[in-house]
Amino acid sequence: MLYGGVNKPQHRFGQSVFDCTSEQCVSDHKRTMKHRCTLKHDIFKEFLAEFLGTFVLVLFGCGSVAQTVLSRNTMGEPLTIHLGFTTGLMMGVYIAGGVSGGHLNPAVSLAMVILGKLKIWKFPIYVIAQLLGAFAGAAGVFGLYYDAFMEFTSGILSVTGINATGHIFASYPGRHLTILGGFVDQVIGTGVLVLCILAITDKRNIGAPKGVEPLAIGLIILGISISMGMNCGYPLNPARDLGPRLFTAMAGWGMEVFSTADHWWWIPVFGPLIGGITGAVVYFLLIELHHSDPSEKAQQKPEEEEDEEEDDDSSLRDKYEMITMG
Amino acid sequence: MLYGGVNKPQHRFGQSVFDCTSEQCVSDHKRTMKHRCTLKHDIFKEFLAEFLGTFVLVLFGCGSVAQTVLSRNTMGEPLTIHLGFTTGLMMGVYIAGGVSGGHLNPAVSLAMVILGKLKIWKFPIYVIAQLLGAFAGAAGVFGLYYDAFMEFTSGILSVTGINATGHIFASYPGRHLTILGGFVDQVIGTGVLVLCILAITDKRNIGAPKGVEPLAIGLIILGISISMGMNCGYPLNPARDLGPRLFTAMAGWGMEVFSTADHWWWIPVFGPLIGGITGAVVYFLLIELHHSDPSEKAQQKPEEEEDEEEDDDSSLRDKYEMITMG
Amino acid sequence: MLYGGVNKPQHRFGQSVFDCTSEQCVSDHKRTMKHRCTLKHDIFKEFLAEFLGTFVLVLFGCGSVAQTVLSRNTMGEPLTIHLGFTTGLMMGVYIAGGVSGGHLNPAVSLAMVILGKLKIWKFPIYVIAQLLGAFAGAAGVFGLYYDAFMEFTSGILSVTGINATGHIFASYPGRHLTILGGFVDQVIGTGVLVLCILAITDKRNIGAPKGVEPLAIGLIILGISISMGMNCGYPLNPARDLGPRLFTAMAGWGMEVFSTADHWWWIPVFGPLIGGITGAVVYFLLIELHHSDPSEKAQQKPEEEEDEEEDDDSSLRDKYEMITMG
Amino acid sequence: MLYGGVNKPQHRFGQSVFDCTSEQCVSDHKRTMKHRCTLKHDIFKEFLAEFLGTFVLVLFGCGSVAQTVLSRNTMGEPLTIHLGFTTGLMMGVYIAGGVSGGHLNPAVSLAMVILGKLKIWKFPIYVIAQLLGAFAGAAGVFGLYYDAFMEFTSGILSVTGINATGHIFASYPGRHLTILGGFVDQVIGTGVLVLCILAITDKRNIGAPKGVEPLAIGLIILGISISMGMNCGYPLNPARDLGPRLFTAMAGWGMEVFSTADHWWWIPVFGPLIGGITGAVVYFLLIELHHSDPSEKAQQKPEEEEDEEEDDDSSLRDKYEMITMG
Repeated sequence: MLYGGVNKPQHRFGQSVFDCTSEQCVSDHKRTMKHRCTLKHDIFKEFLAEFLGTFVLVLFGCGSVAQTVLSRNTMGEPLTIHLGFTTGLMMGVYIAGGVSGGHLNPAVSLAMVILGKLKIWKFPIYVIAQLLGAFAGAAGVFGLYYDAFMEFTSGILSVTGINATGHIFASYPGRHLTILGGFVDQVIGTGVLVLCILAITDKRNIGAPKGVEPLAIGLIILGISISMGMNCGYPLNPARDLGPRLFTAMAGWGMEVFSTADHWWWIPVFGPLIGGITGAVVYFLLIELHHSDPSEKAQQKPEEEEDEEEDDDSSLRDKYEMITMG
Repeated sequence: MLYGGVNKPQHRFGQSVFDCTSEQCVSDHKRTMKHRCTLKHDIFKEFLAEFLGTFVLVLFGCGSVAQTVLSRNTMGEPLTIHLGFTTGLMMGVYIAGGVSGGHLNPAVSLAMVILGKLKIWKFPIYVIAQLLGAFAGAAGVFGLYYDAFMEFTSGILSVTGINATGHIFASYPGRHLTILGGFVDQVIGTGVLVLCILAITDKRNIGAPKGVEPLAIGLIILGISISMGMNCGYPLNPARDLGPRLFTAMAGWGMEVFSTADHWWWIPVFGPLIGGITGAVVYFLLIELHHSDPSEKAQQKPEEEEDEEEDDDSSLRDKYEMITMG
Repeated sequence: MLYGGVNKPQHRFGQSVFDCTSEQCVSDHKRTMKHRCTLKHDIFKEFLAEFLGTFVLVLFGCGSVAQTVLSRNTMGEPLTIHLGFTTGLMMGVYIAGGVSGGHLNPAVSLAMVILGKLKIWKFPIYVIAQLLGAFAGAAGVFGLYYDAFMEFTSGILSVTGINATGHIFASYPGRHLTILGGFVDQVIGTGVLVLCILAITDKRNIGAPKGVEPLAIGLIILGISISMGMNCGYPLNPARDLGPRLFTAMAGWGMEVFSTADHWWWIPVFGPLIGGITGAVVYFLLIELHHSDPSEKAQQKPEEEEDEEEDDDSSLRDKYEMITMG
Repeated sequence: MLYGGVNKPQHRFGQSVFDCTSEQCVSDHKRTMKHRCTLKHDIFKEFLAEFLGTFVLVLFGCGSVAQTVLSRNTMGEPLTIHLGFTTGLMMGVYIAGGVSGGHLNPAVSLAMVILGKLKIWKFPIYVIAQLLGAFAGAAGVFGLYYDAFMEFTSGILSVTGINATGHIFASYPGRHLTILGGFVDQVIGTGVLVLCILAITDKRNIGAPKGVEPLAIGLIILGISISMGMNCGYPLNPARDLGPRLFTAMAGWGMEVFSTADHWWWIPVFGPLIGGITGAVVYFLLIELHHSDPSEKAQQKPEEEEDEEEDDDSSLRDKYEMITMG
């Protein structure tokens, strides 16, 4: 998670091993017991947070596309769509960040698994929460703009043609794009997204202050949407793309949403996963690997007050648990 | 209030009960006395802060609509209007945040009452301050652009037609919108607004740092305006909508402002109130309820220095008094 | 100044009177001596900071107008001009904030004098620095775009007509505007500007964190430009308007820059001064006056560690020296 | 570097000389040894960070130009290009800031050498890393949009004409611009860039908080692009301009990229270097030189706790090592 804080007694346990006073130890023991009991509760609350965060992300993001398309560009433009996904991610991370890490994206969760920051058994649960959240977000947009959809489409929901509305919810490739080009696009785009998220949340790098990360992370989307959005509209997120696509399949657009454009749908699902891994590996190899070993540092100042110790330690831990749910 | 700080001796009292030294107790006692005396003063200064904050919100927000409409879109566009309400809310919260919590919106105040963060007897006083502030803000916009209004309208202030100016001050529904659609729109929009405000100010979640909340809260408006603004222009706030509507009724637009569009006016008054409650309940049930109990935590580290204690405590208190006036 | 920090030994002196230990006192004494010696140096460095900050403000601000006008709107639009002044003010405050308070505006300096946050004898020196900085900034814009000016105007620098370029540097009123309307516009606009600056830098309100104030202050300009810019383009600042106007008078536009529009030039000089005072008085009466008296607070916790004391004290002092040069 | 933190044991050594306890000294000694061993490692990791940061800067920046040009302005506009470079710099600094200082620009590195904040022997290594990063970024943009390039150009990559694409990667002057005008443009633009970077990272000025600097630094680019972008499109950075230009020369655009516009290419290489020096000298002479001498301050409070001492010291050191790689 973006910041462990109150919610992670288990890490505090590991930490206090170093400087154990008797009262401390007893309370730590209690904490460990507590920890085992609350594990189940932890994954449940993380599920809820990822669900709600992804819901808001899609409500803002797809909502801004809907406003632009349904108003025939009179109340929106490409830039407002970019800002819709930007603010959607900001708010989604504010909602889920302190509980589940605010991944809101299976590609990010997978990258965290690869880096050892998310336990692998939690990965499918995160993905389900994200998919359901995105599905619900798409339903929210449809409900919000039901009247406008009916007026715009005269009731005929379609993926192609002049009154197409399918692209409000899920990505479709530009005409110029090849399958390979689309896949490369998603790998590069998601790779950069994960790379920047890791930099922003890396307390051993310059790192955004606690509580400012959501704003900085949102700005990544602004940058990517503006520079890498022309091929297929920067899905970058299997849940954000597949969830709403499933919704449209069920809500009246039909199976065309999967078959269109040579079964394009799988590219924004698997491309981002590969991209997320790539971004994580690149950041690890080029930056994170070369940070000075913090264990040395801990060793070097055994005389300093506990207060400071804790800071060091938490910055070390941050590295491993940052944007994870631990 | 967004952060208790200097202005809330009463909470500090409750807190210092835990570690009472004799001098401390005496001074606490004095503080309690003081507290009783200043209660009346508190609600007065909260009234002034809500008034001034809402004034600035409406001055910026409705001002940006006026600039766009009166210049016939040459000096404004939808995005500048969105940014007008965004910066208006940011500045309004900077003005009122440290005194009254910076609600600036009866729907937010009601949500705070529901969550126990605002005493119910203060609610009507807040609402009156917000209404008066919004009314004054509308008057300010009219005064600022009096010359331009006269030129644009040739002196005929109307709600419909090509030279309509009523929508500068209050919301009117798009042609496609049904009554139900409008109500749902206001419930969803205000629900998301309150949800995100609660996330941003929740110190047990990732939470924006003190003094950065106004910026993050403003960005919610940017997101909503871009993604949920097409139906009726995101009023989301009974005071922001009803106050200026009352002003227009009195300043020359006439009772048409209430009767137009099947008496639309009550939807942006009652929709947001329901929406605010909904958002508060959703955030509470899905996120806040599952935060680890901070009382446990306080129990777990009785040996740590007072300094830290205070931090914990204030983060706990933040939860209850955040965006409230204590 | 926005934050006293290293540069204000004199205030630290006053503060340490309360808890005087012998070594402390001696060093304080030395500091006081030092203080007297450096007073002259202080006003000199404040002069330089205000000069450089205002130079950057005008370079960015007028530069963005120049880019928009000279490219005949192909490389700029109203929004980019707004963002030019916004980022200009942000950067100007980063440059001058820690030294002179980053007023960059005689109206702000005057408001600080009224509030007792700037010594009156420093006021004219600040104003001269600001005027010179704005003049130099205008010269910078002219130098930067000299080739473009020559192409655009064919060498004929004029204030009116299709190839007018005078409004790149200084404000001229819209056709609809009366003298009274213009004056009211400048009073309201500058009043809101000062009001929001005071809120953002008031550490007893919610207040932006140290180092974030310049970003928040810049956003005030974004809001005002979008909502109150239609009458005459938000000069809001006697130096920013008069300095570049003087430059144009001398650089080839002639005395027409003063005579045009019924000698409009004096309104953006005197309007903002009245507006600044108004904003300061409103903020003081409605918000600042009602903050709990911090001297009480200091009295209430005499037992707490010096560390905390200092914090309280500095927040108190912040109130008085904030955005001033001490 | 933007903030020394964990990665700079050598500076911590100098600092702890002042208050040496025996254990401390021993560990410092170890640290010094360590330091000598890791010097080689340091420059290697700084190389990687500058490479990756500049890669992201160019990927976002040139990517946003590509999106605008290749979509024939339907999916981009001048403002999105400005925001592309803005967010690109923000993210590049987040990636490299904590390791190498996040210069991402030979002009910034040279300014740091002049100010004694970067050792001169590191300068060429930084420049090579930046050039390679920019070259790789251009290749990334070409790969990402390969399909779109082929469609747009029908396979003919050219620098001039209606389907020109060379200006996606490197700057070319506007028709109105003279050689002298172009050189002055680059000197002023880069001078202001370096001036503002120095202000934002100067902890003895108001200074952005740790981790917020990248956002503030990015906004400089937004301001410059909007106000000084009309002459030749604000390259401001020899690596950002020459690297992609080299890529285009090799990838099919041919040597025309160097010969066009009277061999324009050398101006955005040498202009920024002169500009960077100018900006550094101006900031030093007008602002930094006049900060109170911090050594005095250290002297003045020998009785205060080590904790505070460290703060002072680091703020002093920040001055010298800020945005450097130490």
